[in-house]
Parts: sequence; structure tokens; C-alpha cells
Amino acid sequence: MVTVEWRRSVALTGTVVKYLTVAMLVPLGVGVVYGEDIGVFLLSMLVTLALGLLLERVGSAGDLGPREALLFVSLSWFLIPLVGTIPYLFGDTGTIAHPVNALFESVSGFTTTGATVMGTISVEQHSHAIMIWRQLTQWLGGMGIIVLMVAIFPEVAVNGAQLIESEAPGPELQRLTPRIAETARLLWLFYLGFTVLYVVLLLALHYGGLAPEMGVYDAVAHAFTTLPTGGFSPEADSIAAFSPAVQWLVIPFMIVAGTNFALFYYLLQREYGSFFENREFQAYIGANVVVTLVLFVLLYLGSAPTLELGGQTQGVLENSLRQAAFQVASLLNSTGYATSNFADWGTTAQIVLLFAMFIGGSAGSTGGGVKIIRWLVVLKSIRRQLFTTANPNAVKPVRLGGFVIDEEVIKAIYGFTLLYLLLFGLSAVLIALDAGRHPNIELTTLEAVSASVATIGNIGPGFGLLGPFGSYIDFPWTSKLLMSFLMLIGRLEIIPVLVLFTGAFWRR
Amino acid sequence: MVTVEWRRSVALTGTVVKYLTVAMLVPLGVGVVYGEDIGVFLLSMLVTLALGLLLERVGSAGDLGPREALLFVSLSWFLIPLVGTIPYLFGDTGTIAHPVNALFESVSGFTTTGATVMGTISVEQHSHAIMIWRQLTQWLGGMGIIVLMVAIFPEVAVNGAQLIESEAPGPELQRLTPRIAETARLLWLFYLGFTVLYVVLLLALHYGGLAPEMGVYDAVAHAFTTLPTGGFSPEADSIAAFSPAVQWLVIPFMIVAGTNFALFYYLLQREYGSFFENREFQAYIGANVVVTLVLFVLLYLGSAPTLELGGQTQGVLENSLRQAAFQVASLLNSTGYATSNFADWGTTAQIVLLFAMFIGGSAGSTGGGVKIIRWLVVLKSIRRQLFTTANPNAVKPVRLGGFVIDEEVIKAIYGFTLLYLLLFGLSAVLIALDAGRHPNIELTTLEAVSASVATIGNIGPGFGLLGPFGSYIDFPWTSKLLMSFLMLIGRLEIIPVLVLFTGAFWRR
Ligand SMILES: [K+]
Ligand SMILES: [K+]
Repeated sequence: MVTVEWRRSVALTGTVVKYLTVAMLVPLGVGVVYGEDIGVFLLSMLVTLALGLLLERVGSAGDLGPREALLFVSLSWFLIPLVGTIPYLFGDTGTIAHPVNALFESVSGFTTTGATVMGTISVEQHSHAIMIWRQLTQWLGGMGIIVLMVAIFPEVAVNGAQLIESEAPGPELQRLTPRIAETARLLWLFYLGFTVLYVVLLLALHYGGLAPEMGVYDAVAHAFTTLPTGGFSPEADSIAAFSPAVQWLVIPFMIVAGTNFALFYYLLQREYGSFFENREFQAYIGANVVVTLVLFVLLYLGSAPTLELGGQTQGVLENSLRQAAFQVASLLNSTGYATSNFADWGTTAQIVLLFAMFIGGSAGSTGGGVKIIRWLVVLKSIRRQLFTTANPNAVKPVRLGGFVIDEEVIKAIYGFTLLYLLLFGLSAVLIALDAGRHPNIELTTLEAVSASVATIGNIGPGFGLLGPFGSYIDFPWTSKLLMSFLMLIGRLEIIPVLVLFTGAFWRR
Repeated sequence: MVTVEWRRSVALTGTVVKYLTVAMLVPLGVGVVYGEDIGVFLLSMLVTLALGLLLERVGSAGDLGPREALLFVSLSWFLIPLVGTIPYLFGDTGTIAHPVNALFESVSGFTTTGATVMGTISVEQHSHAIMIWRQLTQWLGGMGIIVLMVAIFPEVAVNGAQLIESEAPGPELQRLTPRIAETARLLWLFYLGFTVLYVVLLLALHYGGLAPEMGVYDAVAHAFTTLPTGGFSPEADSIAAFSPAVQWLVIPFMIVAGTNFALFYYLLQREYGSFFENREFQAYIGANVVVTLVLFVLLYLGSAPTLELGGQTQGVLENSLRQAAFQVASLLNSTGYATSNFADWGTTAQIVLLFAMFIGGSAGSTGGGVKIIRWLVVLKSIRRQLFTTANPNAVKPVRLGGFVIDEEVIKAIYGFTLLYLLLFGLSAVLIALDAGRHPNIELTTLEAVSASVATIGNIGPGFGLLGPFGSYIDFPWTSKLLMSFLMLIGRLEIIPVLVLFTGAFWRR
């Protein structure tokens, strides 16, 4: 007997969809400024509003139980990208006017993946309005639309804690204040604050003469996709289109985007210890530094040829360091920007980047992947296992930063990490098999593997044809649907989606 | 304070080394028959005996505690391959006369990996005696030298259960009879029985005219490397050197080699239920069938070009099925034989094979890899995690074949599986980095990844230059040492080796 009150979940999803109309005011405004696509967005807003109101009528919006909350989050994350396609379908958008491509691009946006199926990326061809909508999807999806709902409409927040649990990355949410709506509000305020600061700094570079190409539009567009570790750029050449000064500025903001935003609250409260002694933060910074140094040495010694985009690194100190630090910050935390066509680097350098792609951002950040904290718990648990092998009768808890980690949490993290790796591996095989059906696509192993990790990890670019200046356009539509699913479950951290496919969820 | 009675472990290791002299009677006998390398093996035996007696004098051979048992197993597995190099170093063996190469080849033998650094593989160049020693190392390492010791010398067996635990593959040993020495004896008898049966059947094919190339020497040599999932062949063309009839016969014996040998005891006891209803056995057969079918379809539809070794598969039913079934049985359970140069197949087919390489054989078999039973427990535990996500208050144990699996065992299996995957990934990066230091080696990702999984998984061949008819000879010596270590920890299932590197092991 189905006893999940799914109508309540559907109705609340309608509310979320309804408010997407408000978000579309941004591209509408841009459209008005540039005199482009005003009709497209007016029509899109009308359809979105109608759909939202319709869904709201499906059921009464009562309190959500734990299962209804799970269903609501998954349902919203299924419907939000669908709604996101509307402007692509109505606009004169070339390749992404095709429904499957539109879905892929929209899912890639909201999940902050940044993989693209656009043919040519340019504001001239696609209009400033469409392009800013594409950027905005990432910004909305980054900190999370449902977290935003909880922040703005506390009445949603009866089960706000679980809602945020399901949407926010990482195994557990750090509750900053007793009221969950307050926490949600703080997270979004930090997010907004960094976005504004970033725009200001980019424009300062611009008006200071250090970033001639970085005008207001580009500054806002890139702020919309840096803080959510999104990686979409309105420039075909991504960040390679901008000066070294811009590239150096983007790096720390990418690193911020992969940091647990809750930590900035401690910083603001002058609890510097809670900030700097946070084990995950230390490991995150440490991983960035170590992988950057390895890559820096490789690039300096000549592991990459001199490229049109990226320039010479062999024997060039500043460029080697910049390219290494940028690409590592970008791929480790799942942003996906590029300042060099790393798909043309030597295999050794590429394998180091592939390795970085499995690390992921921090819990409570907008970064994707397995997340640093899980790797920490996994490594510490394995070390404990070695200890108990030597001391079979000893009882030793796993600690992280002084706290004992519950054994159930350890099992859950183990399970998640393996499930992530299994889905990654299985999907790489499926993508290769699917490409094998099409005689005109000959994927390399690196391409198949990177397509899988770049989508489930919400990273975006991979190697070869799906490199940072490449596109997913040539994949068969079946692969595009599989990858859309991977992006979605990657963003929601798998479990909340897969649980809907179990019988146990629908029966009490 | 060091309180591990390491002298006892060393002394017992000396006993193991001492008895390796007896094993060298086999190549000595072959040398006498062919009039080759008699001096080499007499000298090798002398050195081995002397080393064994010397080590025995290090300490009194008292009872081994749990830690001493662990140390003994790891120490033996460190020294046995070293002793195994002696004939290579004394003989006129070309590339493997170099110490690092000799070590690699010997570790690859005893761990049943089957990766080779020989230049040209031929009995003419290396003598029948040296080649049969190479084959014999796999046979001895397959069911395990320490298991054999426990079987033959019950006085070793005071802590026999733990000795066998540490050496035998799989998370837990099925104890067939109350006395552990009896179990060890049964396992070795089945192993010996299948080896003899296999030789008889191969010779029956030979004298029946269906296998002109499979003479007595080849039959014994291949029996020494099929049952231990070893994969060494004295033929440069591996099993592609033999007729389709031989290839079809090898397949079921490879499958047997990856089966839990304890199950044959039930079969002998006419407990057919315990055999056929064994969950791991079902999954093992199922995995073989499914992956074979996928690969069969790919080959039949043309995923592989027509090769000199392997022939045409596109549109050829029998050859497609044979090539698929052979390569899957060989790589899934970690044997590493080949009947086709699968390194030249299409990427799709190669990725399917790469996937199969991560599955592994059964617990209690001679197969390597993660092992089927661990994947079963992992998948069932993940399913349980989905269930408890939907029912947070429910308590639900994980069952396998009717038995409840202990939560500590689940954690240990999770930990092992992740540790395996982490070491695999990290080693692939290190192998790529190391190759990157050498300007004349340009590894592809597939090569680096397959070098890592083929050694830690005790499989042997990979793709590209380390394909089934290729060689590991071109890797730098640093990579060869790393891979030797990987083969060793893969064979002992990591934990018993790594635990020696923890401080907790050496302190009480
Ligand atoms: K991204
Ligand atoms: K093998």
C-alpha cells in the first residue's frame, strides 16, 4: 500500500517551480538591456508560472514527513532542470534547441556540472539573455534552491533540516544556529556576499587596466558560475580568454567555493580556531597544494606542449605555477574552468588531473565529487582497521578533529563512497558501450572514464573530445540521458534519488 | 618496546625456505631429461638450503602467537620470491638475469600474477628447466606454500588457522573439518587432483589428434599455471598457440581455478545444495556468463579487427563466443592467458575487459582481485543503506545465503575494498608519473590503469605495450619494484602486509 503523502511533495514542488519565474527576471532584464529575447523570457515565465500553479493544486501543502521531504527534494531536482529548458526550447539556440540537448544543458547548469552540448559558445550567437540564464542556473543550483526556499520561507522549514540534508553536499550539515532557517539564510548570505565581492574585484581589475576583456557582463556571468563551482563561461575559451591577473584572481575564489561555507561563520565570529583547525579544511588546502606542486613540476619540466591556449609552460615559472594551480583548483573541487587546453597535455599530467577529479570539494560547499570529509573518514577508518588487525581485542573509535565518529556514520560513508565509485565505473562502461554502437565515435578509455567522472562528480570537462574547450554534443542521445541522470544523482549525492527506486520507500 | 617474538617467525620462514630446495627437484629433473641447466639448479638448491638452515638458526621455533603468525606469513612471502630469483640469476636467462627483472618475474610467478619481463619467451632460449621453474612458482604460490606447510607439517599448525587466513584469498576461511591441517590437506588434494585431471585431458586431446602442439611438457607446464590462475605460458603466443579444442578445454579449468575449492568438498560429500546454492558461486558463474555475452555480441558485431593471433570474430559465431568466453574467464578470475591479442581490440571491448578485471575470483580459490564475495557483501550492504534511509528506525541485518553477516565483517570488507581501489588508483598515478620521467616511454591512460590493476589484482597482462603478448620490460626499475610490491600485497590481500608498517603491530 502506498502511504507516502506524495501529493504534498508535488504541491511544494509546484511552489518551487512557481518561484523560478522570479529567477527568470534576471535574463529578462538582461534581454531588455540588450534588446534581445524579451519575448522568449516573457513566454518562458508564463509557462513556468502556469506549471507551478498547476502543480500546487495537486495537493494540500501540509507538513512534510521524512519521506515526503526526500520525495520533494528529488522531485524538485527533476522538475527544476525541466523548467530550465524552456528558454532554450523557445529561443533560437542552435544545438540546444533539441529537447535532449536542452535537458542536458539545463541539468548540467543546475547541478553545477558545466558540461556543455552547445555548438559554438558565444553571446553573439545565443544572445546575452540566454547566456546569462545558463550562468544563473548554476548560481541557483550551487547553494541550492531548496536551501534558499528554507531561508526565505520558514514555513517550508518544518522539516527544513532534512530538506537541507538531502540537498546540501556532504554527509552531515553543520547547524550554525538552533533554527535551521537561520542557518540556511547565513549560508546563502555568505554565498551572495562572496559573489558580490568577486564581481567588485573583477571589475577593479578591469578598470585598473589589468583585465581589458572582463567587462560588467562577463564579471557577473563568471561570478554566477565560480562560487557554485559551476564552470560555465559565456566565453568559448573559458578563463583562457582573460589576462593572467584575472586567472590569478579566479583561483582563490574557486578555492573558496569548495570550502565549507559554515566555516566563514566561525571566521566572522572571530573563532579562528574553528576555521583553521578544521580537519577537512586543512586536508582540502593540503590536497590543493600537493597536487598543484606535482603538476607544477611536471609542467615546468615539459609535460605539456606549448599550446595556443595556455602558452608555454616548459621552463616558464609563472605560467607553470599558474596553469598548475588553476587547473588543480578547478578540477579538484569540480568547477571545470580552464586556462589551458589540458586535454592536449601529456598523459602523465592528464592522469594527475584525473586523480584530482576524484577528490571533490568540502561538505557544506558547492563542490561536487566524493568530498574531502568522506575520504578523511575512509582513510581514518582503514587505519583503525589496521590497528584492530594488530590488536584484535582492542576497541578504538575513529576520531576526526577530536570528535568520535559514529560507527553507523562510518558504514554510511563507506557505502556512499563505494556506491559512487561503482556507479562511476559502471557508467564508464555503459558510455563506452553506447559509443561503440555508433561507428563514427571512437572513444578512448580516458574519454569514457572522464565522461563518467566529470558528470557524476559535477565537474564538467574531461579529456579528449570532451576537453575544456570541447563539447558533449557528439555523444548519442542515450548517453546524454545517462549523463544527465549521473549529474543529477551526483548533485544530490545519490542516496536520496536511489531510495525512491526501492520498494521499502513506498511501503511503510 | 618491541615485544613481537620475531625470531620465531624468522626461524619458521627458514623452514619454508629450506623446503623450497625440494621444489627445485622438479626443474632439476626436467634439466636432467633435457640435459640443460643441471648445474644451475644444483647450485640454486645448495644456496637455498644454506639460506634456509641459516635462518632456522636465528631463533627457536616455538609456538607462534597471532602477531608472529602474521609476521611469518609476510616474511615468507617476501623471502620466497627472493629465493625464486636464484635460478634466474645463475642461469643464462637474458633480460631476467638482471636482479630487478629477476625479482619482478619471481614475484609475478609466486603471486600467480603472470606479468613478465622476459624478452622472448621460448624454451629454446631459456631452457626447459628454467621455464618449468617459472611455471612451478605459480603452482606453488596458487594454493599457497604456507597452506601446504600446514597440510604436511601439522606442528606448524598450532596457529594454522590464522596462517591460512593470512595467506588464503577471501575474507574468511571455510573450515571443512574441525582440524585445520585436515582442511589444508583437502584443499591441496583438490588442487593436485584438478591439476592431474587437467594434464590427462590435455594429453587425451593431444593423442586424440585435436591438439598437435600440446605435448607432455606443454601439458604439465600449463597445468602448473591454469589451476593457480597464474597465466604464465612457456609459449610466446600463450594459449593462442594451441588449437580451438585446447582453448575450449582451458576455459572450464580456468573457471574451476576461480571457484572456492571448499565447494568441491561438498560436491564430493554429495551435498549438492551447498555447492549449487552457494551465493558466491552463483554470482561468479553469473558474472562470467553476463560479461561473456556482452563481449560476444561486441566481437560478433565487429568490435575487434581480424588479428593474426585470434583470427576473425566479426560475423563468426564460434570464434566470437570462444574469444569472449576465454578472455572473460581469464581476466575476470585473474588468470591472464590469452587466445587473441585483445590489446588490439576496439576500445569498447577493451573497457568491458577492464571492467571484468575488477571483479576477481572467489574466496578460497586461487583467483586474485577484490573477490566476488566482497562485492556481494558491498552491494547488499548498500541496498541495506537505501532501506534504512527510507526506514531510519528499522534494524535490518545484511544476509548472504541465509546467514547474517556481522557488522564488523561488513566494515572490514568495506575497508578492504576501498583500500584496494585507493591503492589501485594511487599506483596508476605513480606508474604514470614514473614513466613520465623517462622520455622514451609515453604511457596511455589505459596502459597506466591496466598496469596497476593487472599487478595488484594478480592478473598479469594489461593493454597496449603490456598486452597479453607484450611485456613489462620497458618500465623503469622503480616502477618494477612498485609493481612487485603491488603483486605481493595483492596476493596477501593487503592488510597482513600493511599492518606490519603500523606502530601498533610492534608495540603491545
Ligand atoms: K562544475
Ligand atoms: K594471473
